[in-house]
Amino acid sequence: MGLLRIALGQIDTTVGDLDGNAAKVLASVEAAKEQQADLVVFPELALCGYPPEDLLLKPHFLRDCRRALDGLAAQCRGMCLLLGFPDTAKGKVYNAAALIHDQRILAVYRKLELPNYGVFDEKRYFTPGSGCLVFEVNGVRVFVTICEDVWVEGGTAERYAEKNHAHVVVNLSASPFHAGKLATRRDVLAGFARRTGAFVCYANLVGGQDELVFDGGSLVLGPDGGLIASAERFQEDLLVADIEGDAGSEATHPRQMSGRWGRRIAIQSEHASGRVAAPPRVAPPLDRVAETYHALVLGTRDYVRKNGFSRVAIGLSGGIDSALTAAIAVDALGETNVIGVTMPSQFTSGETLSDAALLACNLRIPLITLPIKPIFAAYMDTLSDTFGPDPPGLAGENLQARIRGNLLMALSNRFGWLVLTTGNKSETAVGYCTLYGDTAGGFAVIKDVPKTLVYELAEFVNRTAQRNVIPRGILERPPTAELRPDQKDEDSLPPYAVLDPILRAYVEEDKAADEIAAEGADLGRVREVIRMVDRSEYKRRQAPPGVKITPKAFGRDRRLPITNRFGNGRAGAAKAPAT
Amino acid sequence: MGLLRIALGQIDTTVGDLDGNAAKVLASVEAAKEQQADLVVFPELALCGYPPEDLLLKPHFLRDCRRALDGLAAQCRGMCLLLGFPDTAKGKVYNAAALIHDQRILAVYRKLELPNYGVFDEKRYFTPGSGCLVFEVNGVRVFVTICEDVWVEGGTAERYAEKNHAHVVVNLSASPFHAGKLATRRDVLAGFARRTGAFVCYANLVGGQDELVFDGGSLVLGPDGGLIASAERFQEDLLVADIEGDAGSEATHPRQMSGRWGRRIAIQSEHASGRVAAPPRVAPPLDRVAETYHALVLGTRDYVRKNGFSRVAIGLSGGIDSALTAAIAVDALGETNVIGVTMPSQFTSGETLSDAALLACNLRIPLITLPIKPIFAAYMDTLSDTFGPDPPGLAGENLQARIRGNLLMALSNRFGWLVLTTGNKSETAVGYCTLYGDTAGGFAVIKDVPKTLVYELAEFVNRTAQRNVIPRGILERPPTAELRPDQKDEDSLPPYAVLDPILRAYVEEDKAADEIAAEGADLGRVREVIRMVDRSEYKRRQAPPGVKITPKAFGRDRRLPITNRFGNGRAGAAKAPAT
Repeated sequence: MGLLRIALGQIDTTVGDLDGNAAKVLASVEAAKEQQADLVVFPELALCGYPPEDLLLKPHFLRDCRRALDGLAAQCRGMCLLLGFPDTAKGKVYNAAALIHDQRILAVYRKLELPNYGVFDEKRYFTPGSGCLVFEVNGVRVFVTICEDVWVEGGTAERYAEKNHAHVVVNLSASPFHAGKLATRRDVLAGFARRTGAFVCYANLVGGQDELVFDGGSLVLGPDGGLIASAERFQEDLLVADIEGDAGSEATHPRQMSGRWGRRIAIQSEHASGRVAAPPRVAPPLDRVAETYHALVLGTRDYVRKNGFSRVAIGLSGGIDSALTAAIAVDALGETNVIGVTMPSQFTSGETLSDAALLACNLRIPLITLPIKPIFAAYMDTLSDTFGPDPPGLAGENLQARIRGNLLMALSNRFGWLVLTTGNKSETAVGYCTLYGDTAGGFAVIKDVPKTLVYELAEFVNRTAQRNVIPRGILERPPTAELRPDQKDEDSLPPYAVLDPILRAYVEEDKAADEIAAEGADLGRVREVIRMVDRSEYKRRQAPPGVKITPKAFGRDRRLPITNRFGNGRAGAAKAPAT
Repeated sequence: MGLLRIALGQIDTTVGDLDGNAAKVLASVEAAKEQQADLVVFPELALCGYPPEDLLLKPHFLRDCRRALDGLAAQCRGMCLLLGFPDTAKGKVYNAAALIHDQRILAVYRKLELPNYGVFDEKRYFTPGSGCLVFEVNGVRVFVTICEDVWVEGGTAERYAEKNHAHVVVNLSASPFHAGKLATRRDVLAGFARRTGAFVCYANLVGGQDELVFDGGSLVLGPDGGLIASAERFQEDLLVADIEGDAGSEATHPRQMSGRWGRRIAIQSEHASGRVAAPPRVAPPLDRVAETYHALVLGTRDYVRKNGFSRVAIGLSGGIDSALTAAIAVDALGETNVIGVTMPSQFTSGETLSDAALLACNLRIPLITLPIKPIFAAYMDTLSDTFGPDPPGLAGENLQARIRGNLLMALSNRFGWLVLTTGNKSETAVGYCTLYGDTAGGFAVIKDVPKTLVYELAEFVNRTAQRNVIPRGILERPPTAELRPDQKDEDSLPPYAVLDPILRAYVEEDKAADEIAAEGADLGRVREVIRMVDRSEYKRRQAPPGVKITPKAFGRDRRLPITNRFGNGRAGAAKAPAT
């Protein structure tokens, strides 16, 4: 009866950085070797990063991936690993896993189930595989799957695993985060374990890639679905666990269902003798608010750093959105890499100004003050003939926001700082924002965070710090854009406690107006909200990327046409505003 | 031996406008009835518009489509038509065609082949069909296909058509335009006709939808692949053609390969007796530059109007890009609906200013002049402490472009004009543009037009008008952004005649640097261009939509990650600039 010491190499890869990713794989392999592991499993497409998108349409990218795989295999002396990479044959591309042992690629498994929904476009690139890969390490039978393969109940992978008497099912994964996803994932994996009677070893990617955050949290589950070990979330980790083989596993030959490798692959590990047991490790759980916060921090850190920036600038309005964004940025990048900018106008109150200063002081970040009144006056002067004597109205409000956007971008151009924008999901949804104004910047940290959750996250920041890093005044003042005298968000929008559930039902759950009203909201109000969401599509299309933390984010997750006359809440032609 | 008079209803639908689209269908049905047609064929998904994207994920959208289909069928007395709509059954969605005859839906065909490449995401939404639909009108056997079905050589539709002895193959299509596409399409359809020995009647969509233009040009081809009739391009049309049945067609029963409708469908038209022959009509061909120009006009007109705007504003720099954009806008919307805005700075030359004025005069559009110098001075004054004594450099250049963007958006906000941006594909590719500056606006008319083609289109405008609508000075002056003294595009970029072929090879053909250099370009220069393209991805992500006219446009056609360290021409980490 053999014993398999498995290591799950939860690494933070960068899309396209073949050399950098290979170096991370090798470092994990070395660390696993030190812990006398027999097999190291890496995430899906770990060699090239996930998702590589249309890089997969470039033949030279695929050639370079293959070269990098061969080069990496040659450096893996005496170790056995499973590594995700894009495999090619006869003009087709596969989402694949290479089984590498002692400098040789023994076999390649090709993903059977290709997700093509939500943020996934795998059918754009990949051909599904048709076979399975089973091999033995120290007599323990290991069955290989990639991500979606185990999400299809009663699917091909499950049938193959059963027929092959899999003892351990490994899953190479790149499963994007949203709040609550871990529980779903555990349920799915536990179901697969119970139905196949196998251990499940799940190696997930960690790190941010444009709008996606991969949260790690790699897992080992028993055949009963129970948790044996789990890795840290939102950081790199190497999770090691011992799995004992069953008595019968060596007796039965694996049956290859189809595919290229009909031969039996039996590996005897060099590290199996004389080692002491590795006690299983379980990472502490995180609640919904905590995991969301960590996702925002990691997504921001990785976007900024992987794109070659070190410092960021944030416009601090004295409101809660910019306060939370700044707190996240400080956690992501350190206080020396965050610059606050306050840009008061004639409508900025003394309280918001002093709260912005207090926030910067609490976060220990510098604060640059750039009043916008003289610039605004210059614009109004230039436009006076064309505009005529009437007050500028919305045009004047948007102009203030756009002056601020320009000032931030001027700092960005001059000093190389990436501008972080501060809009939340509620605003983004209804278009309560100024294109090229408060939406101007490189990364929209909280664009997928509904306003009600912004408050919860701000309280989390203060609770974690055990002091009011975000001043109470900011938490307690009614939300306002301060673009005209005594303006309040609630003049233009329903209260956020009413708005957010309507938005969730419409945006994330695709419900119709009457269905949403049936849940208790006022039908007229629901229709008005839907109308605002629909007519703001053009603004979202020009918005910067930001971290997905809900089941359906704006962006690649939700692909609505701009030109679109469908809508329960709309009468007649769609008039998209110009702002 | 029967005769089939077929009408192809080439209509310009709007996505989501179920009532409006149904009204267009009914109007075409009436027109076809007047011409004594037996069968009217409409484009793919004509009922809901194409592509509906994630509207297809909304159950209430699908329900409304079904309701609209039933309502429409009830109004089609005494007529036979084929209409594209999204069909649903058991939680699945199909890209389908309804056969409607005399107020009843006789059968539904479901598309077999689902494109999931380029701009297409059909596997995100649809399940492929499994059967075929054959029916007889006046004894002539008609076989139904939808778009991609006929693009797969030797595919299922082709086999079914042969086995069913199709006499006429109809194709409901929504085939997006790019320059040269019509010839490809005719080759594909002619091949299908020859291989199956059937007439091919191809009904294409016409009109603009966000980034796509559907060019119409519906066709009737003979069994030898020869052209019998063709509809106008870039406008609505009803193409009528008579097709004689073969002697044997009434003798053989159609064999249903699979699917729900095993019964024989034989329709006798009310209009078949006593009519005179309809002479086939062939639309005149358009050359590459002409068809591109018409695509830009139609795409602009439909984007503006379908989104509820009537007037547009364009910043006229005195350069060729804005001149061409303005000429297109005038052709699309009429001279009374286009407003030129010139925004001179200290770097604007007298020639460019007077050329802008001359252009506006030639186009008969008003010209608003808004000098930017005082606003620029106000910004510089505000930033002086932070920037210090050094000249502002790139930050100052971008600021000028952003002031212009703000002024245009202020006019937009105040007067409800949509801002058209003027950047071409060469600039967009290498990032030679200012985010929130010259990229600020609702629609980017020529974003997919390489600079060398901009010149050809400008000459086309003058040739067509038989006068220099676009002043010769604009055509002959070396391109310049005029953001610093004596600036020329060629200070920063290779000459466009060198740049454009490199861009086509890299962006549209996915070639590697060494492959492009092997075609004659300097390897160092190729690498530098690739580096510029890769690092500008974040800018393109925030750019407005514009008309696709090449085989691969930026946008849904080309999906590259922003965070991306892969690249032949790059050394080390990717540093995305902040502009």
